[in-house]
Amino acid sequence: MKFSINRDLLLFHLNHVTKALSTKPQMPILTGIKLEVKKDSISLTASNSDITIQATIPQSDKLLIEEEGICVLPGKYLFEIIRKLDARDIDFVSFEENMVKILTDRSNFTLNVLDKEAFPLISFDDSPVHLALDVLNLKQIIKKTTFASSISESRMVLTGVAFSTNESKMEAIATDSFRLAKKYMIFDRQYPKISVVIPSKSLDELNKVIEEIDQLVQIHFFSTKVLFKYKNLLFQTRLIEGVFPNTSSLVPTEFMSSLRFGKQELLSAIERASLFTSSESTNIIKMTLTNEGNVEITSTSNEIGAVLEEITPLQCSKIIPFQIAFSSKFFMDALRAFDSAEVTIHFTGEIKPFIITGEYDVNHIQLILPVRVA
Amino acid sequence: MKFSINRDLLLFHLNHVTKALSTKPQMPILTGIKLEVKKDSISLTASNSDITIQATIPQSDKLLIEEEGICVLPGKYLFEIIRKLDARDIDFVSFEENMVKILTDRSNFTLNVLDKEAFPLISFDDSPVHLALDVLNLKQIIKKTTFASSISESRMVLTGVAFSTNESKMEAIATDSFRLAKKYMIFDRQYPKISVVIPSKSLDELNKVIEEIDQLVQIHFFSTKVLFKYKNLLFQTRLIEGVFPNTSSLVPTEFMSSLRFGKQELLSAIERASLFTSSESTNIIKMTLTNEGNVEITSTSNEIGAVLEEITPLQCSKIIPFQIAFSSKFFMDALRAFDSAEVTIHFTGEIKPFIITGEYDVNHIQLILPVRVA
Repeated sequence: MKFSINRDLLLFHLNHVTKALSTKPQMPILTGIKLEVKKDSISLTASNSDITIQATIPQSDKLLIEEEGICVLPGKYLFEIIRKLDARDIDFVSFEENMVKILTDRSNFTLNVLDKEAFPLISFDDSPVHLALDVLNLKQIIKKTTFASSISESRMVLTGVAFSTNESKMEAIATDSFRLAKKYMIFDRQYPKISVVIPSKSLDELNKVIEEIDQLVQIHFFSTKVLFKYKNLLFQTRLIEGVFPNTSSLVPTEFMSSLRFGKQELLSAIERASLFTSSESTNIIKMTLTNEGNVEITSTSNEIGAVLEEITPLQCSKIIPFQIAFSSKFFMDALRAFDSAEVTIHFTGEIKPFIITGEYDVNHIQLILPVRVA
Repeated sequence: MKFSINRDLLLFHLNHVTKALSTKPQMPILTGIKLEVKKDSISLTASNSDITIQATIPQSDKLLIEEEGICVLPGKYLFEIIRKLDARDIDFVSFEENMVKILTDRSNFTLNVLDKEAFPLISFDDSPVHLALDVLNLKQIIKKTTFASSISESRMVLTGVAFSTNESKMEAIATDSFRLAKKYMIFDRQYPKISVVIPSKSLDELNKVIEEIDQLVQIHFFSTKVLFKYKNLLFQTRLIEGVFPNTSSLVPTEFMSSLRFGKQELLSAIERASLFTSSESTNIIKMTLTNEGNVEITSTSNEIGAVLEEITPLQCSKIIPFQIAFSSKFFMDALRAFDSAEVTIHFTGEIKPFIITGEYDVNHIQLILPVRVA
C-alpha cells in the first residue's frame, strides 16, 4: 500500500467517517478505520454497532496512488495525526506487514495496524425499495423529529423515528409518549410501501455528514437496515425492530382556541418562566388565557420564588379563559423546531393535548400532552 | 429597598461578583449575593471560603435609588434572571420582609431572600503594607506562573504562587516540584518586605475580572489575606499558610548548550510527538540533538506506534550530541506562557533541569526537570 494525499482532503473525509467509530472497548477492531486502496480510489470505512460510514476518494491531482492494499488503522489516532499535521501532502506507506508509515517533510509516524481480517464485512448493495430525497428536506425531517423521541431504552421502538409511505405521501413521526413530532411530505409520484423505524441517534449523525443542501440523497430500504447514499459517502444504519404505536388518532383536529405568537418572544418568555424549574421532574409551567385575551405564563418554586410573564398573542381565534400546565422543556424543544417567525398554538382543552404549527413550516406539527396540576 | 438599574450595567457587575459564589451546599448563605443599597450607590458582594468579591455601582442616570436597604438573594438565580431579561431597565423592590420583586414591563419575578444576618461580615480595610501594579503586569504574572503550581493538596503551599519583595524587586514563583515558573519585576522605588503565598485558583479568578490593562491595581497585604482594589471592584483572597521552598539555588546559570526555536513550530512538533502519550503518567517524549545540529523529538507507544519529529533550531550555541526526556505536557504548558515568537532552551545536562526563556519575555523563566528513561 502506498499513496500520497492532500491533507485537507483526507481530513474532510475523516471528519465524516470518524462519526461511526466505536468508543466501546469491547470490540477493539471497531475503533479502527479500514483503508482500501484500489487502482483509482481509496475508501475509508468505520462501523459501530449502529452505523457504518464509508467515504470514497477518487484519484485526482490531490490523491496519487502508487500501490494498492488494505489495512485497518486506529481511528482516533489516525484522525488526530492528520488534524495536527500542517503539511500540504501526506504519504502513506505500509511497512513490515503490520505497520503503516505516515510521512511528511519533517514528521514520521509509525502506526501499528489492527487485524484487517477481524473487520466486519459490510455490504453496501442497493435495494429494489428505494427513494430519493434532497438534503434540505432530509435535514428538515431530522431537525423536526429526532429530539421528540425517547431517550429511555425501556421501549426501544420509541428511540427512533418512524418513516412510512402511503402512495405519494411520506410521513416521519417521533414520540416519547409525552409529546409527538410529525413531518410529512407529498411527492409528485407514488413510492413503494415503506414502514421502518430508524434510530434517532443515527439520524442525528447522518445530519452532521450531509451538508450540501442542493444534493440528492438516495435511500435504500432493507428489512433490518437502511442505506443513505450521498455524493461519495455511504451511510448505513440498523433499523429498530418492533411495532411503532399508531398515533393517527392522537392528533386533534378540532380546537377550542388558537393563539398566534411571535416565536422568539414566546420562547424568551417561556425560558424566563422556567428559570426556577431546573430539574427534569419539576419543569412544569402554567399558561393562562385571561378574560382580556392576555396570556400569563407562571411557575412557582417554594424554595426560590415565583415568576409571572405576560405576553399578548398576535391573534386569538376565540377568547375562552382557561389554564393549562405542561413541561417547559418539551415546549421549548418544540418551538425551536420551527423555522417560521410566528407559531400558532391550538388548544383543545385544559387537560387535552395541544398542537403547535408554523405558517412557513408546512406539513409539520408538534404535539404536547399537558399535565394535571392542583 | 427600591431601585431601578440598567440591565447591561447590572449584568456586567454580576458577571464579576458571581465568580466568588460558592457552589458547595454546606453553607447555603454563601450561594447568595448581598445587595447593599445606600443613598448614592449599591454594592454587590459574594464570598466563598477562598475569595470575596465586592462591586460598587455609584448612582448615575443608569441607577436610580429610591429607598435604601440590604438583602441577600440567591446568586445563581439572580444572575440567570438578569441574563435572560431583555428589558433596558429593571426595578428591584423589597416586599413583605422576606421577598424581593424584580420587575420589567412584562416580567415579574419574586425571589425569596436568604438570611442577611447569616452573611459573613467582611472587612475591606486598607493595609499599611501595600503596593500598586498595573493590570498588564499583574495579568502577565498570573498567566506565567499559576499553571505550574501543584493541583495536589498534599503540600498545600505548592498550590499557590509565592510573592516576595526584596528592596525594589518583586518575584512570583510557582512550582509543583517537577517544574518551576518564575517572573520578577524591578520597580523604580523600594517596597516594604512582603512574603506571601496566594492560592493559584484565586489568582486565576482575579485574572478574569481585571480587564482594562491601563488601570492600576492596589494590593493590600495582611497576615492571612490580600486585598486587590481595581476600579470599583474589591477582590480579597485568603493566603496559604506554610513555608514556600527556597528555590533560588535550583535555577541553573551555566549551560551546556542553548537552542533557539520558533515557538509555534516547536509547539506543533511537540504536540504531534506527544499524540501517542495521552495518559498523565506516560506523557514522556525524548529530545535528541544530533551531530548535525538537528533536533529529533520522539515518543513510542508499544500499543499504538511511534513518532519522530525533526526540527532545526534557529540557532545552537554549541553542538553537543545529547538526549533528554521530559513531560510533553509540562513543556507545552511552559511554551504557552511565552509571548515571544522565539524561545531559547538552555540545557545543563541529560538529567539536569533545563530552563526556557523568550527574547521579549523579560525577567521570566520556565524550568523543567527531565526524567530518567532506559
